[in-house]
Formats: sequence, C-alpha cells, structure tokens
Amino acid sequence: MPDYRRRATREAMSVRLDVNGMMADTVGHAGVTREEVDGLGARTSEIARALKARRGAGELPFLDLPYQKDALARTKTVANALREESETLVVLGIGGSALGTRTLIEALETTRRVVVADNVDPMSFGTLLDGLELARTTFNVISKSGETAETMAQFLIVRDLLLRQLGAVDYAKRVVITTDADQGALRQVVHDEGFRDLAVPADVGGRFSVLTAVGLLPAAFAGVRVDDLLAGAAWMDTRCQEPDPWRNPAHLLATLLYLADARHRRNVVVLMPYSDRLHCYAAWFGQLWAESLGKAETLDGKPAHVGQTPLSAVGATDQHSLLQLFTGGPADKVIIMLRVEDHGREVPVPAAYADLDSIGYLGGVGLGRLLNLEQRATELALVKQQRPVLTINVPQVNAFTLGQLICLFEVAVVFAAGLYRVNPLDQPGVEDSKRLTYGQMGRKGFDAERAQVEAWLARKRNDYTL
Amino acid sequence: MPDYRRRATREAMSVRLDVNGMMADTVGHAGVTREEVDGLGARTSEIARALKARRGAGELPFLDLPYQKDALARTKTVANALREESETLVVLGIGGSALGTRTLIEALETTRRVVVADNVDPMSFGTLLDGLELARTTFNVISKSGETAETMAQFLIVRDLLLRQLGAVDYAKRVVITTDADQGALRQVVHDEGFRDLAVPADVGGRFSVLTAVGLLPAAFAGVRVDDLLAGAAWMDTRCQEPDPWRNPAHLLATLLYLADARHRRNVVVLMPYSDRLHCYAAWFGQLWAESLGKAETLDGKPAHVGQTPLSAVGATDQHSLLQLFTGGPADKVIIMLRVEDHGREVPVPAAYADLDSIGYLGGVGLGRLLNLEQRATELALVKQQRPVLTINVPQVNAFTLGQLICLFEVAVVFAAGLYRVNPLDQPGVEDSKRLTYGQMGRKGFDAERAQVEAWLARKRNDYTL
Repeated sequence: MPDYRRRATREAMSVRLDVNGMMADTVGHAGVTREEVDGLGARTSEIARALKARRGAGELPFLDLPYQKDALARTKTVANALREESETLVVLGIGGSALGTRTLIEALETTRRVVVADNVDPMSFGTLLDGLELARTTFNVISKSGETAETMAQFLIVRDLLLRQLGAVDYAKRVVITTDADQGALRQVVHDEGFRDLAVPADVGGRFSVLTAVGLLPAAFAGVRVDDLLAGAAWMDTRCQEPDPWRNPAHLLATLLYLADARHRRNVVVLMPYSDRLHCYAAWFGQLWAESLGKAETLDGKPAHVGQTPLSAVGATDQHSLLQLFTGGPADKVIIMLRVEDHGREVPVPAAYADLDSIGYLGGVGLGRLLNLEQRATELALVKQQRPVLTINVPQVNAFTLGQLICLFEVAVVFAAGLYRVNPLDQPGVEDSKRLTYGQMGRKGFDAERAQVEAWLARKRNDYTL
Repeated sequence: MPDYRRRATREAMSVRLDVNGMMADTVGHAGVTREEVDGLGARTSEIARALKARRGAGELPFLDLPYQKDALARTKTVANALREESETLVVLGIGGSALGTRTLIEALETTRRVVVADNVDPMSFGTLLDGLELARTTFNVISKSGETAETMAQFLIVRDLLLRQLGAVDYAKRVVITTDADQGALRQVVHDEGFRDLAVPADVGGRFSVLTAVGLLPAAFAGVRVDDLLAGAAWMDTRCQEPDPWRNPAHLLATLLYLADARHRRNVVVLMPYSDRLHCYAAWFGQLWAESLGKAETLDGKPAHVGQTPLSAVGATDQHSLLQLFTGGPADKVIIMLRVEDHGREVPVPAAYADLDSIGYLGGVGLGRLLNLEQRATELALVKQQRPVLTINVPQVNAFTLGQLICLFEVAVVFAAGLYRVNPLDQPGVEDSKRLTYGQMGRKGFDAERAQVEAWLARKRNDYTL
C-alpha cells in the first residue's frame, strides 16, 4: 500500500489542474486573461486573508475535519462493530446527508453493501425494504437538524418495521443515529431510546459534511480506506495554503470560474468526469456549487441573484448526448473535465474485421486508453470552437485522490463565495417549500402556509391546463 | 388490464400540462404573456403546416413509429425467443442507443434483467463481464451507423470472449445486432457472421429511436407492455394534431419554452420528476433537447448558437441540493415538474413521538402523499419567487403514460426547432471529436487530426498546470 506520509508519494498521486483551455491565449475572447486574474489580486488576497482569519476563529470547521483524530477513532469503532453485526448498511438521509456517501461508495472499492435511501418515493423505498434481511441490516439515520421531513418519515417506517419484526428489545440494535451533538429532535430520540449515535460537529453544514461521521461511518463500514481519504484532503488543504493564486489550485479554480461567469456570461458549469465511478462525485459537486453560491442576497443584504448552474455529465457517454450543445449551442458554459490516468484495470480490444475500415482500427487499443483518447479529443474539439475547458488530471480513482477532489472544491466554493460576496454556508431559499409542506400536512403553526397553497390551487385557470 | 382502445380510458390516463406557473398572470415579468404566444401565431401555424407536409412526405418517420405493426411483430418474435434462451440481455450501445432503453427499463415493471452498457470505462465494463453467465446472456449490439467507436470496441471484446468460452458454433447465438437496414459495417458483419438482426428504419436518428427495435427489443425482453407504450405514443400523437396551440400540448410546450429562452433569457430548462422511476426519462429528455436544438447554424446557414441547456433533477431529493439555486440564483431557468398522481404503491408513516413537534406531525401520512405535497409546495415556493414552472401531471407511471411522455417531447422538440429555425435531426458538432479520436488511434485518413492533437499538447504552458 502506498505510504502517503512520504512527500514523493503524495506528489505522484496529486490531482493537478490544467487551465490552458480556460485562457484567452487558447480560446480567444471566450477565455480569461492573465490580466483579469491579476486584476482581482487585491480582492483575492483580501479573501484569502479573511478566510484564514475565520478558520483560525473556528468559523470554518469543515476545513479542519481531516485532522479530527478522536472523532475518526470513534467512527471507526462503531463501523467495526457494525461490520461484525451486519451485511448491509442502509443510510436514511437526503441532500448533504446522502450525496457525499454515495460519492464515496460509488467511486471506491467496497467489501460490504451500503444503500443510500435519499427519497420518499413509495415504490423505490417500499421495494428496498421488501428485499432486506432485517436481522443483518443496520439503518443509519442521518439528519443534522434532526427534523428533515423525508428522513424522519423513513425513520418512522423503519422503526415500526423493526419493532414488529424483531421485538422491543432487539430493534434498537439495528439503528445508528448521526445528528447534531447537542440539539434537535433526533438527539432527543437518541436520549429516550438509547440508540447508538454519532455526532455531526457544530457549524458543519450538510454539503460540507462528507468527512464527518455522516460520510465516514458508511464508508468505513463499506471497507473504504478512510485514513487515505483524510490524508488526501489534508494534502490538498496544504496545497491550498499557497498565497500566490497561480500556485493555489482551489483559489485559481474559483477565480477562473467566477470570472467566466461574472465577466464572460458563462452561467453554466459542466462537470464531466471520464470515469463511471466519478458520476456521483459530479452530483456532489452540483449540490456544493449550487447551494453555496446560488444566493438571492449579498452578505450585506443587497440583491444578488447569482450562482452558476452545475450540470453533470459523464464521458465518453455524454459525447453522444450533450456534446452537440456544448460545441454548437450558446457561449454560456465552462466545461470541467476530469481525466483519470490509470483506471485500475485495462480491457484490451481484440483485433478483428481487419477488412472493415470503420471497425478494424480499434484492435489493439484498450478501453481505458480509448476513453482517455476521447477525453483529449473532446477537450481539443471544444477549444477549437472557443469553448473554455478546464481539465483536472486524476492519477487514479482512490481514497487519497477523492479526498483531494473533495477538499479542492470545498475550498474553491468558499473562495468563490468571497468573490460573489455571498454567504456560502446558508440556504435560506429552501425554507419556504418546507413551510408550505408543513402547512399541507397540518403541522401546528403553519395555517397561513396551508391557506397559501389552497389559494394557489384555486387561482389556477382551467384554460391553462390541457 | 385497462383497455386503451376505449376513449374514456385514454382520457383518464392522459398526461396533462398545467402551464399556470409559466404565465405572466402568475410570475409577472418572468412569465410569458398570452399575447406573446398569440403574437407568434403566424409562425406557429406555418410550422405546424410545414411539419404536417414533411410528415406526409415521409421526412419525419419517427412520428409514424407507433403504427408500424410489422416491425413490432418481428421485434416481439425475437424478444420472445430470447426470453426462452436467456435470463439477461446486455445492451451494447451509447447515446440514443442507450438512453431510451434505460428510460423504459427503469420506469416500468420488468420480469427479466436488462443491463445497458453505455460507456467504455474499463473498470465498469470489465466488472460487468466478470459477473455474467454467458450461456444465459444475450448481447444486443446497437448502432445505427454500425461504426460507433465505443460500441464497436465493446462488441469486439464480447465477440472474442464468446468465441473463447462458447466456441465457434454457439457464440453467434448469443448476439443480436440492431443497425441500419441496408448499410454500415455492422450490417456487413451480420451478413458475414449470420447473427440475428433487427433494423433501425432509415432516417430515424438515435435520439428519436426508442420506439424502434432499438428500445422495443430490450423492453419486450424485459416484459414491458410494448403495445401499451405505442398506444400511449399514438394517443399523444392524436392530441398533437390540434391546430389551436392552446389545445395542443406539444406545440404549447415548445412555444412556451422557446419564448422563455428567446424573450426572457431562460437558457436553462430543468426537468424535475417527483418519482425515482422517471430519473432516466429526464436524461433521455436531456439528450433530445440538447442535441436537437443546440445548433451553431440556422437552417439557411446563418450563425445561430442557440439551444436551452437541459438540467435533470429529482424531487424531493434535489430540493435538498439544487432548490436553493432555483429560488435564489439568477433568473435564468424554467422548471418543468413531473407530478405522478398514483405511485402504484403507498407506504404509510406510522405515528410515533407525538410529543416531538418536528416529527410527530408526520404520523398518518403516506410517503407518496408526502412526495406529492412537497411537489405542490415547491411549485408554489418557486412561483412566489417569480420562477416560471410548468407542471406535467402523470396519472401513473406505466407504459401508456410513458409512451405519451416520449411522444410529447419528440413532437415538441421538432416544433421548437421550427421556432429557432434550426435542424432538429442532425448533430454536426460531435464529428470533430470523433475525428480527433480516430487520429490518435492511427485510423487511416486521419493524420491531420493526429497532428492537431500533438500540436495542442505541445502548446500547453507549464505555468498553467498546477
């Protein structure tokens, strides 16, 4: 196993940014100039300084997660116990309580089954429950607030099922709760029922929580090398201390994406890994970018309505679906490609049909090599059409590189929020939808919202329904 | 089983558009006015007339797929034979040869396993092959052109594997080819090796091919009621003959989305089904919308660079991921929600923790009902923030409604192309990437492209890599 304490090993396994395709030297007016980046120098230095100070004051605790040895030890202890007891871990969680875990499980090698149930679709959830052997399953209920409606509904269903099937003594052994250390309804439930529990540290929001017990318990249960994951995040964190933005991957990434959006009208950012295993990583990035930057107001309360729209794609598949729009459509996108140098396996393509020109040339290549040649071809095809492309080179998909990728965008999004002058840590725009749901459910105190929904339904015109 | 020959049954199972949330009456300046729609009346009538004429001349053959009884019979015969021989059907196909099938398989009840292999990732493809029992598996190789690099590479690997494991006599029985009726390398292969085959009709492009053997063979193998699927498409086709755009679902849909983009700067269209089973339908829609409308040139060769960017989301899950951006971010989106009235199953939420305000209110609801209340709440929350929303009501997810949904957007995209004045049937913007791949592979006749890639790599600056 590689020893990531050695600097040479870390360097060789480093995730690298290639920003050539973003720059005006390459894509003309569509690109960013060196002068534009340097012209933001005063702002970027100020943001870097402010973030350092806030981190020192404990206001950005998610940045310190790679170094929390006690929390990690506790998570590992619980995970090891669960591995003795269960073959399957079912995560009940949604949004930030689900996407990070799904990213880890899909990307990395696993030795136990983890299923993430992140919706309240009765067909898919019912079918999932039907197929479980309850006596060999643990349910990990994850909600920072302890009152997420979808997760709580799932929990009530599972709790009742366990009570009925396993009885009042054994049912509690099949549940582990991950929630805020001190407050919320789930914390109360832990207290009353004696479930095992893990804590989400204060001030670490859902979309920044993958390196807490939220993501680490399921990952450790699955057999993921969580130490490597944290070592990778720590390594990227180290690289992102660099004051010169041209040498700081997260700060340069954030600055280029911000300039592309704010100065060059690129309101869509595509994340396109050339690896099936990073599909869910693109969805994780989508939440991080959308929820952190998509804001109605600036920090000082002025109207903002900013935020790039993240679009996830997979190469080479989506060359046959979205590429036409990327090359021919409006000049409104930046494309970030993730290129994996070593896919961990090669599948050779045997030679055959040498007389058929359009098949014969494939013999002798490997699928991984074909995939990477397509990535390079598409990168150039985009650049030739003046479409900005940023390529992230990933030596392998493993826990160490995934840790880097997670930290890279977490730091980048907070830095980008500085440029947009918005708060990356809140999500006020989702509250109204929750209240309107409570109103319809008859939850106490939400009568006004119930009335609003009724008025909306009454106002709908029949001639607008067909 | 419902009898869709009865008009009352069709009406009751009709997919319905609710455009209230799109209109200026509801969302103010962000919305479309009745006058804007009516002001396009001359254009829309002309487009409707032109499409009718083109269809009559056989230029839009995908519209007639619901009525091809001979082709359907042949597909069913092959599917029934395969059901006797195999437990698993592996589709080797990409883009339009994969997304439609995945849509059908994920949305509908199945009795046999269909796996769609739509990438050349060596890890996922290798792992898939490792787990197959070859003697009980059929491979359905799908490529209209017969020369799709990814699919041909997969085919060469599978062919070699079958030859080695099953021998020169039996291997051919495990392959069914779906390709152009008359031309291409795969047609030649069928001719030389005697594989079973099905034909993709002339002039039906990949993204419009789900109702040909491309999608119907795997669906019929899986046990999907393909007659209902075609009956649903035919029913929507009938509804889309209506000359008045206010009564024609596809024409109104296309007109509203076009106006939102061209007049109200909504360059992103979100498709958000509130049903896990329609997740892949959103990806199918993504290809259809992106590849058909994302065009560099108009029909008469003038620069266009048009096309809305499709973003797929799933409710309620993505309320916890993307909704913040939708409500608070820039005014650059239209959101289409798919609401499923009856999810085919209900999972009741048992009452518990009555003393905990934030959990207790959930007791007594069902998951499906919760999901639908959330859809309504989010629809209203968006409208309150002046975000245009179009809701599509789907009575149930079944083959008849899915057939309607497929036809609805196929007709809509061709109509929208009329408004944008672009060709919905081509995809010239993907060719360069293919040529640049051929160049790197050393395929004959692509030396210039190889040199372009080498020049691009040589031009990259070291100080732009970090």
